[in-house]
This record gives sequence, structure tokens and C-alpha cells, in this order.
Amino acid sequence: MSEKMVTLVSSSGSFGGKQEVWSHESKELKCKMNFSVYIPPKVKNNAGTKVPVLYWLSGLTCTEQNFIIKSGFQKYASEEGIIVVGPDTSPRGVNIEGEDDDYDFGSGAGFYVDSTQDKWKTHYRMYSYVTKELPKMIDQNFPVIKGCQSIFGHSMGGHGSLICALKNPGFYKSVSVFSPISNPVVGKWGQKCLTGYLGNNKKDWEEWDATLLVKKYKGPALNLIVEQGAEDPYLADELYVQNLIDACVGANVAVDYRLHEGYDHSFYFVSTFLGQHIKHHANILYSTVY
Amino acid sequence: MSEKMVTLVSSSGSFGGKQEVWSHESKELKCKMNFSVYIPPKVKNNAGTKVPVLYWLSGLTCTEQNFIIKSGFQKYASEEGIIVVGPDTSPRGVNIEGEDDDYDFGSGAGFYVDSTQDKWKTHYRMYSYVTKELPKMIDQNFPVIKGCQSIFGHSMGGHGSLICALKNPGFYKSVSVFSPISNPVVGKWGQKCLTGYLGNNKKDWEEWDATLLVKKYKGPALNLIVEQGAEDPYLADELYVQNLIDACVGANVAVDYRLHEGYDHSFYFVSTFLGQHIKHHANILYSTVY
Repeated sequence: MSEKMVTLVSSSGSFGGKQEVWSHESKELKCKMNFSVYIPPKVKNNAGTKVPVLYWLSGLTCTEQNFIIKSGFQKYASEEGIIVVGPDTSPRGVNIEGEDDDYDFGSGAGFYVDSTQDKWKTHYRMYSYVTKELPKMIDQNFPVIKGCQSIFGHSMGGHGSLICALKNPGFYKSVSVFSPISNPVVGKWGQKCLTGYLGNNKKDWEEWDATLLVKKYKGPALNLIVEQGAEDPYLADELYVQNLIDACVGANVAVDYRLHEGYDHSFYFVSTFLGQHIKHHANILYSTVY
Repeated sequence: MSEKMVTLVSSSGSFGGKQEVWSHESKELKCKMNFSVYIPPKVKNNAGTKVPVLYWLSGLTCTEQNFIIKSGFQKYASEEGIIVVGPDTSPRGVNIEGEDDDYDFGSGAGFYVDSTQDKWKTHYRMYSYVTKELPKMIDQNFPVIKGCQSIFGHSMGGHGSLICALKNPGFYKSVSVFSPISNPVVGKWGQKCLTGYLGNNKKDWEEWDATLLVKKYKGPALNLIVEQGAEDPYLADELYVQNLIDACVGANVAVDYRLHEGYDHSFYFVSTFLGQHIKHHANILYSTVY
């Protein structure tokens, strides 16, 4: 592990492995970024062992901390023997005027796109960060099997997971999402972020919308799960999950859509079904190795 | 359920049940108090079913939220079919001068004692709240089997769980603790709280110290588990867990002491071993019912 590229921020024992947070200087984002890494006992106790890696993308307002504190994923990552990596959700402290003013734009709300607008484009390149710089840096510094990766996320991070998978066919072996912002060109959160980062030309938004991207997807199976709470207060005006499901069906893209009565948008929902997602990804990832 | 006694604050689906927060006006503490209640699917899906109840006591700085957000206990409470209740850690907003000044005294640090000091004694009665008012109110308002209860907690809440069990033989069917403040008359946190709430006479502290109480314990089996991380930074100067273990051994009080290399004081430690504790309590509680 290169001391120069990544710096250990914290490390705690967790389910026989280690829940760590690291930082590095991001070239894409031109700032220091934290990211979480869970090291399962399979790696911790066996020097030289490499395992698959699963990337988690978080929702609005989150840092790299929320998922590792709230979801309880470590139990399942420990059992399945995979590394789980979670980046922050935006550049931090880059001194753009107004960057901290809104919970749903700027800091904590990078929306996993590459900005084209003068004010934001120097730093707000979360798409390139997540799909290029981060996996390369993980490959170089942690004991992962190169190219053996999947992605999942929640809300804004569900949107991010979907577009990352749809725009890079085969790069991720599977993708799963909880309560995803599925059709941002019609949702309020989506329209605000897409306008701010990409400008007013709606044609430019289409490359960052999962429902539109899935209609022209050509590539290997996505192995896609969509998990959704029926009592999610954002379902009607922000998420538009049914539009994504309809687009998948129309495009013959297989999707396992699970709508649950009695669940909302919170981590209580995510944690309830998270174990099934991690097993799904681990099964697929390990099947590509052996 | 009486609408007048308890008020629903929030409710989220979780592992087939409900993670709820309620509030009530506490007579002991003379303020409004929040508490968490997890309702397992065994109760939620079967009207009229009553189940055992497990009380959780949190550590310094916590509200009723930390445990329900960070520990992941809901999975196990769902599987075992028990209600889990978690009170706040102190009175709130009672306008005592300096109540919010320190993280380790006053708000968030009630220390589960009944204060005798003029400044604090009107409100700071967490011991009577936890052992009398709270269980009575839970019995009256939630579908629990009366008298079928156990208790567990972390750090300051480990201290609280121990003294509640030791001072009320048989009231709790089992007790388990993570990283407990075990001998507060010698630890810094303990001495600060005991001085503040009970005054300078150290003789008055002895009724609130688990290591001293266990030496004279006469009662049914405590069914006690002590879970401790070897890398806990508070072990040497605050917790004094070995003093408790030595006292248990000296007094012929059975204790299952588990010291784990590689674990610290955080919820990453608690969540790793929490499932075993909940199964332990559920086994004992259900064995008293049937």
C-alpha cells in the first residue's frame, strides 16, 4: 500500500474485519476526499488474499460516514468476504460561493455528474471521480481483484449507481438501488442539480438520467435490483421509480423491482433489505472469479 | 394504548416491524422525555400478542436516537420477537444553569443515579425513571408481558444496566453490558458525575458502583455478559472492567467476560456482538414465559 497516495483517517474492528476511513488528494475534484473501506476478515486474516469490491454511493447531505454508521452492512460484507468502498457525495471545502447554502445542491449533493458550468466544472466532477479515479486508486492501494466490482446506492446514490452502470456497460458486474432518483429530468431535486451543474439546455441532461439511458442500453446484463418503500414521501415528486421500471420493461432490460408496504425513505428501510443486496452482488462477483 | 400518556413522535418500517419513537411527560424527571420502542413483526402482525421487553441504556452524549440509528439491533429483535425500549440519557431542557456545558455531566450524562444535590435533585432522577416510571409506563402502553424484562447497555449505560440489575434482584431476568463504566468511584467520568449528583461524601457513592454492589449481591442469577474491546481507549482510566470481573469472581457471581483483541469503544464494536446479546436475553426471557 502506497503511503503517499492514501492516508488512514480511522480504523475500528467490525465483524472480524476493519471499518476504515481513508483520505487522498483527488485529481478530478482538486480537493482532499475521504472514503470508507470495509476490510472483511477473509482479507484481514490472510495476507495476500484479494477479493471483489462493491461500491456504495450515498444520498443527499451524506458524507462517507452515514452509510458506515447507519446501515449495518458490515455484517454481510464480513460474511460474504468482499471489500465495500463508499466515497463522499461531493467535493469539500473548495470555496465556491454558495457551495454550502443548500442541502440539495453543492456540498453533499454532487449528483454524480461532471459539471459543464464555469462556476462548478473545475471541482464538481463526481462522475469521473466515481467511475475512473476512485476505482483506479482502490485497485492500486487495496487488495481487490481488478475489474471485479459492482455498485449500489441510495436515493441520489441510487441515481448515481444507475448512471454509472448504464454508461459503462460491463464495468460493474451488478447494480442495485434503494429508493433511487430514477428520472431526474422530471423530478425537483434532479432538475435543480442538472440545471446548476449542466445549464438550461435539457438536451444536455439526457446523458445523466437513468430512465432515458436504460432505453438505449446495449450491454451485458445489469443484474439490477430496485428496492422501494411504498410509504416513501419522495416517491411521487422526486424519485419517479415507476418511470424507470416501465423503461426497463420497454427496453427488455431485466429488473427485479421490489415495492414494500410500510417502508419509508430512511436507513431503517435500507438496512432491512441490505443483506439481500450484498449477497446478490457477492454471488455475482464471485461467480465471475471462479 | 392511552393517547394521553404517550405520544408518537416517529415510526419507520424496520425488519418487518416498526422502529418507533414516543414521548411522554415524566413525573420523576419533570420534563418531556423521548424513548424508542422497536415493535417486532410477531407483535405487529398479530393483534393481542404480548412479548418480553429488553431495555437498552445508552452512553454519554447519546439521546434515544444513537442506539436505534447505529447499532443494527432491529434485525435481531425482529428475529427473536422481543420489544426493545431505549430511553434518553438525561432530563432535557430543564433550565438548570450549566446543564449543557459538559459532555460528561448534565444533559446527555444523567449517569442513571438519583441526585441528592439541591441544584440537580428535582430533575436528575434517572435511576427511578429507568427502574420504576419507565417500566410501569411501558407495561401500561405497549404489548409486553408484565415482569418479563431484561436490560443491557453501553459505557455509561453499561454502568446503568449493572446498577439497575444489582439493586433490584430478580426484576431483570438477565443483564449484559458493552464497555461498561464498571467502578465509577475510581474512574474520572464516574467521580465527576458522582460528585456532582451526590456530593463529596464518597460513602454516598457506594450504592451506585457496580463493582462495590456486586460484592454484596444476594439474589437470583444475573445471567451477566460483559463484552469489552481490548483496544478501547477508555479501558485503563475510565472503565476499570477488570475490577468488576474480579469482584464477580470474589463474590461467586457468574459472569461471561469476553475481551476482544482489535475492538475499540465505538458502535462498530457494539454492533459486532449485539446479536449474541439479544439472543441471550430472548432465550432467558422466553424460558421464563413457557
